[in-house]
Amino acid sequence: MQTIKFSNASTDFYFDSSLKQLGKIVDKQNAIVITDQNIFNAHESRFKSFNTIVIPAGEEQKKQSTVDDIILKLIQNKADRKSVLVGVGGGVITDLTGYTASVYMRGIPFGFVPTTILGLVDASIGGKNGIDVGVYKNMVGIIRQPSFLLHDLTLLQSLPEKEWQNGFAEIIKHACIKDAAMFKQLEQYSLKDFKADKTLLAELIKRNALIKTKVVQKDEFEKGDRRLLNFGHTIGHAIETQYNLMHGEAVAIGMVFASEISHQLKGFKEQDRVKSLIEKYQLPTTIQFDAKKVFEVLAMDKKRVQKEMNFVLLDKVGKAVVHPIALKQLEKIINKL
Amino acid sequence: MQTIKFSNASTDFYFDSSLKQLGKIVDKQNAIVITDQNIFNAHESRFKSFNTIVIPAGEEQKKQSTVDDIILKLIQNKADRKSVLVGVGGGVITDLTGYTASVYMRGIPFGFVPTTILGLVDASIGGKNGIDVGVYKNMVGIIRQPSFLLHDLTLLQSLPEKEWQNGFAEIIKHACIKDAAMFKQLEQYSLKDFKADKTLLAELIKRNALIKTKVVQKDEFEKGDRRLLNFGHTIGHAIETQYNLMHGEAVAIGMVFASEISHQLKGFKEQDRVKSLIEKYQLPTTIQFDAKKVFEVLAMDKKRVQKEMNFVLLDKVGKAVVHPIALKQLEKIINKL
Ligand SMILES: NC(=O)c1ccc[n+]([C@@H]2O[C@H](COP(=O)([O-])OP(=O)(O)OC[C@H]3O[C@@H](n4cnc5c(N)ncnc54)[C@H](O)[C@@H]3O)[C@@H](O)[C@H]2O)c1
Ligand SMILES: NC(=O)c1ccc[n+]([C@@H]2O[C@H](COP(=O)([O-])OP(=O)(O)OC[C@H]3O[C@@H](n4cnc5c(N)ncnc54)[C@H](O)[C@@H]3O)[C@@H](O)[C@H]2O)c1
Ligand SMILES: [Zn+2]
Ligand SMILES: [Zn+2]
Repeated sequence: MQTIKFSNASTDFYFDSSLKQLGKIVDKQNAIVITDQNIFNAHESRFKSFNTIVIPAGEEQKKQSTVDDIILKLIQNKADRKSVLVGVGGGVITDLTGYTASVYMRGIPFGFVPTTILGLVDASIGGKNGIDVGVYKNMVGIIRQPSFLLHDLTLLQSLPEKEWQNGFAEIIKHACIKDAAMFKQLEQYSLKDFKADKTLLAELIKRNALIKTKVVQKDEFEKGDRRLLNFGHTIGHAIETQYNLMHGEAVAIGMVFASEISHQLKGFKEQDRVKSLIEKYQLPTTIQFDAKKVFEVLAMDKKRVQKEMNFVLLDKVGKAVVHPIALKQLEKIINKL
Repeated sequence: MQTIKFSNASTDFYFDSSLKQLGKIVDKQNAIVITDQNIFNAHESRFKSFNTIVIPAGEEQKKQSTVDDIILKLIQNKADRKSVLVGVGGGVITDLTGYTASVYMRGIPFGFVPTTILGLVDASIGGKNGIDVGVYKNMVGIIRQPSFLLHDLTLLQSLPEKEWQNGFAEIIKHACIKDAAMFKQLEQYSLKDFKADKTLLAELIKRNALIKTKVVQKDEFEKGDRRLLNFGHTIGHAIETQYNLMHGEAVAIGMVFASEISHQLKGFKEQDRVKSLIEKYQLPTTIQFDAKKVFEVLAMDKKRVQKEMNFVLLDKVGKAVVHPIALKQLEKIINKL
């Protein structure tokens, strides 16, 4: 176990652990587990000794009415300030659990057992919790750190192949912005290798969880370094909903474009390496898109500051920077992409 | 203006100010005012230059679906992280406004213009925001301090007489637990005097707002001194819903009982003074109640710690203490009340 401090909280990390340990971390009497139907079906026996709330799977559940339902169940269960909510699931479950715990009785403790690659390396870390409002993603929420994070990688046995790829997009992102050595490692191995070798996978997951953790620690309230995590996400978000892509696919394409822009504006030379790595992990590298529409969505982005917008670009593999681009110039670049 | 620091935030207090100043404190373009129908009807012209969301009046509006409605309006208004929500109203409005602002886009700034006595001296101070869930009061919420608090006592001109009395219960409470001199002052004057003399009223309001502020500052997360604010509230809460009393009425009766218990257990001698003061401010001092039922509700109270419960008692007027009472003993006392 490893305790990591944030500005006004700390999180205990149990890397490469087991769901069996959960009973030692929390008092079973006080714990209420929240998971989704897919995960529950795949691992039912593991939930047996826990008071468990099972919700349907899917992003469309990440909304207020699900929070309302969970709160009614908490009241029925007489959950109080001594209760602990444990989210066992992907980003949808951990976002919902963290948010519900943050507002129930003005905040009760919570912990996460992430069950997707994206959850393990990204969504469970950083304390951003929340829900969507209609088409507006993560419109409501609060920032609060979990008390603990437990990794049980055997839960990944049931994770669909598509979700593995989806999660590796964020791993490649971390390599691009912060870790040239990991970029090399990803080039040497393949998804198949990581799935076959538990130790290799556990190390990769831990390394990535710590990359995100460090960035968040330095900049919990998103004023500086944390913005680097948006690499590939600006264009990514603009195409994700429009073309109904998975988040990882959109980010993959976004990273290819951002590398290309890095080349044009900052003399970045490794754009082909980035593209090849993304291909290697079976993620898409391009899409036919309507440049005008995409630019319109971009120009509406909340990250825009007046007449220019901040873009995350690469100096080299492993080193990202925030770079302001004038909207006029951005429009030209996108038209040529 | 007076800035008061809390553990991780600070609040600007504008005592004895005017709603007209609001445009100087917040940028009108970015401000969104939230108020209720009663207040809006009584002071419509004062809201003219503000983007205002008006909700129906009443405690039964303090629920999630009202928050949902406000959030939809915020989205329609394109409210973003630069927006400021301003709650102009009693405790229902300030609780709703603070809560909504705390979760919208993971938290945007907010300020309060309290329009009831209870709001001015109690509900607007301390950062507790939240909503009810069915019969469970304040079951959901979070603790977050407002950026500013503005007092415009001319708004009280439309406040119903009953609400004045209701609010004075908390003022008497403050006098009992923290301020013997103010207790004397309250004995010298009457509600009529305070309503007739603006300066006298403004001073009283400020003094009370500062009493609560100081208590909260010392103990923002309710481990010690803040519990003193519960004087009269333990029995008060137990009878409030059961007998459909106004909060101030229930607290008034609760204070009389707590004084009596203080006499029995701590040799407190001024129980008649407390009772007379409460009478003087036209608040009830007793009620026929079902001792068995009241004890049952008490024993379920979340403040109970195992076999005893913490009760706020008076050593003397102006000095309260937290005193544990065994449940068995409490049962006997209540049966005799
Ligand atoms: N809080 C943050 O900082 C943050 C960061 C990134 C993403 N997110 C959020 O995370 C969400 C996406 O996360 P996700 O991709 O994990 O989505 P998800 O939780 O919807 O999981 C994806 C799918 O995999 C299934 N699943 C999960 N684990 C499984 C397992 N072990 N076996 C079988 N099936 C399993 C789920 O039922 C679901 O169908 C989004 O809502 C996004 O906004 C949050
Ligand atoms: N956050 C806290 O720390 C805290 C502390 C105490 C109470 N509270 C909450 O405060 C609420 C009670 O507050 P309240 O008594 O102010 O109730 P309220 O907001 O319901 O106001 C009482 C009534 O007076 C009306 N009103 C308010 N101001 C008026 C004015 N100037 N002119 C005419 N009519 C006016 C309202 O429309 C309402 O009908 C409860 O929900 C309680 O839980 C919160
Ligand atoms: Zn992402
Ligand atoms: Zn009260």
